[in-house]
Amino acid sequence: MGLVVQKYGGSSVADAEGIKRVAQRIAATKKAGHDVVVVVSAMGDTTDELIDLAEQVSPLPPARELDMLLTAGERISMAVVAMAIANLGIEARSFTGSQAGVITDSAHGKARIIDVTPGRIQTALDEGSVAIVAGFQGVSQDTKDITTLGRGGSDTTAVALAAAMGADVCEIYTDVDGVFSADPRLVPTARKLPRVTYEEMLELAANGAKVLHLRCVEYARRYGIPIHVRSSFSQKEGTWVTDQPQDQQEEPGMEQAIISGVAHDRSEAKVTVVGVPDKPGEAASLFRAVADAGINIDMVVQNVSAAATGRTDISFTCPRSDGQAALSALDRVRGAIGFEQLLYDDSIGKISLVGAGMRSHPGVTAEFCGALADAGVNIELISTSEIRISVVCREEAVPAAVAAVHHAFQLDATDEVATVYGGTGR
Amino acid sequence: MGLVVQKYGGSSVADAEGIKRVAQRIAATKKAGHDVVVVVSAMGDTTDELIDLAEQVSPLPPARELDMLLTAGERISMAVVAMAIANLGIEARSFTGSQAGVITDSAHGKARIIDVTPGRIQTALDEGSVAIVAGFQGVSQDTKDITTLGRGGSDTTAVALAAAMGADVCEIYTDVDGVFSADPRLVPTARKLPRVTYEEMLELAANGAKVLHLRCVEYARRYGIPIHVRSSFSQKEGTWVTDQPQDQQEEPGMEQAIISGVAHDRSEAKVTVVGVPDKPGEAASLFRAVADAGINIDMVVQNVSAAATGRTDISFTCPRSDGQAALSALDRVRGAIGFEQLLYDDSIGKISLVGAGMRSHPGVTAEFCGALADAGVNIELISTSEIRISVVCREEAVPAAVAAVHHAFQLDATDEVATVYGGTGR
Repeated sequence: MGLVVQKYGGSSVADAEGIKRVAQRIAATKKAGHDVVVVVSAMGDTTDELIDLAEQVSPLPPARELDMLLTAGERISMAVVAMAIANLGIEARSFTGSQAGVITDSAHGKARIIDVTPGRIQTALDEGSVAIVAGFQGVSQDTKDITTLGRGGSDTTAVALAAAMGADVCEIYTDVDGVFSADPRLVPTARKLPRVTYEEMLELAANGAKVLHLRCVEYARRYGIPIHVRSSFSQKEGTWVTDQPQDQQEEPGMEQAIISGVAHDRSEAKVTVVGVPDKPGEAASLFRAVADAGINIDMVVQNVSAAATGRTDISFTCPRSDGQAALSALDRVRGAIGFEQLLYDDSIGKISLVGAGMRSHPGVTAEFCGALADAGVNIELISTSEIRISVVCREEAVPAAVAAVHHAFQLDATDEVATVYGGTGR
Repeated sequence: MGLVVQKYGGSSVADAEGIKRVAQRIAATKKAGHDVVVVVSAMGDTTDELIDLAEQVSPLPPARELDMLLTAGERISMAVVAMAIANLGIEARSFTGSQAGVITDSAHGKARIIDVTPGRIQTALDEGSVAIVAGFQGVSQDTKDITTLGRGGSDTTAVALAAAMGADVCEIYTDVDGVFSADPRLVPTARKLPRVTYEEMLELAANGAKVLHLRCVEYARRYGIPIHVRSSFSQKEGTWVTDQPQDQQEEPGMEQAIISGVAHDRSEAKVTVVGVPDKPGEAASLFRAVADAGINIDMVVQNVSAAATGRTDISFTCPRSDGQAALSALDRVRGAIGFEQLLYDDSIGKISLVGAGMRSHPGVTAEFCGALADAGVNIELISTSEIRISVVCREEAVPAAVAAVHHAFQLDATDEVATVYGGTGR
């Protein structure tokens, strides 16, 4: 008997059948004696359809109105899920983000949660109801306008509610069985991970694993909320994301696994600034120009300066969708900085190896690079954190690179086969 | 320069093209120097589609959740209308019923407006914005739950906002050119009425004219809000609903027209209770039983008691959709009241002649019945008010009856031809 927060993505509630299946699962959890708070995304392609409608009347819809429009999606799914649960004889009440007390800043389309005041949700639970909450949305503290949280918003809503209400677990239901040691579409022998730490999950999410979003994991780590990532299409145990290292809870004496998994990302582009004067402050000016355009830089590499010329090359990666904006921003400071040339390459891929055990195993980088070399993959950039190594290679080399690394670190499953059900939630 | 409230029905905002057309009209009103508050219904068939979705998961969805679901419809249309206006370079902000301060009781699906506190709307106007408000919806004063106002709800929202904000006019945009002397689909020579009084409009709306709903007209009369019913598909002047008799304003010396128009209604059924003991209180018991089932009775006729039996027959009409419920309610009191038989007839139609001038022209009833007789229409029930005569006849006789009465009272147009654009708004 405890408090369970469950989040269902758009693919889990894509149609009436999916909603009825989700309702069965929620009802079962309630009947098992738990208090249940459910966070839902919009049904299937609803959000895309609403965006399409907006674009039919306006090439650049005002952000406030776009948020007002898109939040209709979760309003529909939450009400229908509540109806489906009520039809099973269990009382259910739906609440918008605003009604659920999800208070945000005023940054429409990418609002940050400032506070959660779930008084109405608690009352509903106290009165024996299941509470259904619209994910992805909140209300601005200052303007009282409706806001949306941006990508991964529904996951973040679920974790934020779980934190505010002291839930025992936040279950994130999706269309895969959990977090895998690699993308099963690239590596059919990928293994479902029974456990990963917040730290590892952050690195996986930041480097291309799509099953959980970075913000949601950050939020869960900050408040110590255990996340259970699992499939809404099966009853299998999924992946637990906690502060306990993998496998340690089950068999405390066992040595911790070194590597959790391999992530990849084909959404970035590489920008190279050629012939930057090698003086203090020049690199800072470059990155300031890019940051001022609202673009997040991921990896950065600066070559050793050529003594003869007193100039150096600086490469960085950023989202492809921001690539042209980054070039424009840099071009505007070309005169002030005096670099020679801008190169742009959007045919790159990134492979990352993540594992908390890497800290105490110095040979990992060598083995990683060796595996890539054996597979004929050329490394263009390298960056590392305490528990991650990432490299940039040609985009078309990604599948072979992921498989080679996955195999080299003995991550292949011996029995369990991954199931991918298609689609991704918001 | 004044404050104009405009309401656009579902057929006016059925798709992106319709919304852009509506936005042009709103922008033109704003550019003419007026403050503009716009009330919108859900786009086209959205409400029906949402109801269909609800029925796929639950045969009898909880009313609270159905309201939550249906209000997504206006949320979508209002946001998209606001975007379309913004795209014309005019600032527009959308507001839900709750944000607009439409406070209701807690009767989900048929909530009554208790109060309107349009502070946020006024602020938006003061800051130079057009305000777009979701029709049909409000928020319960007691539970803070989202409510819907039931049929004609968006018209009522518009008039209520106009009253609360002291608007100069409430323009109701629809898919016909105004209020006609009869349904143009039955009487091609029907005339658009330049003016009708609230009183006449109430009788027309209560007796089958669908262009405005009773509640909205009642609200407008109570607060003295002039309504201008007009088409969103043309620039023509429509019909003004005010407290001034028809034509009197234009030509004060002219005699008032006797008759405004002919309404008809094919949505009612007739129930006859045969052999009711002719004692005080028996009729009251019958009607109490029907009222307790939540059914509104329209016309009532009680025959003269047959002296020999001491029994009488009582007939009444009610909505066909409530017919079976009325029979069940009456059957439950059959023993207590001791009537003999229940007859049910849902093949009836009702024709009503409405005109404020009827008060001072005693021959109207005779002429009305004569016209029906000449057309071979048999009268089954008659009821009258000060400014209306209604009769019940066979359903299939309705078109001929309407045309005959329309012609007998010289209501046919001499020049203007009615245009029906198809569909009806909510």
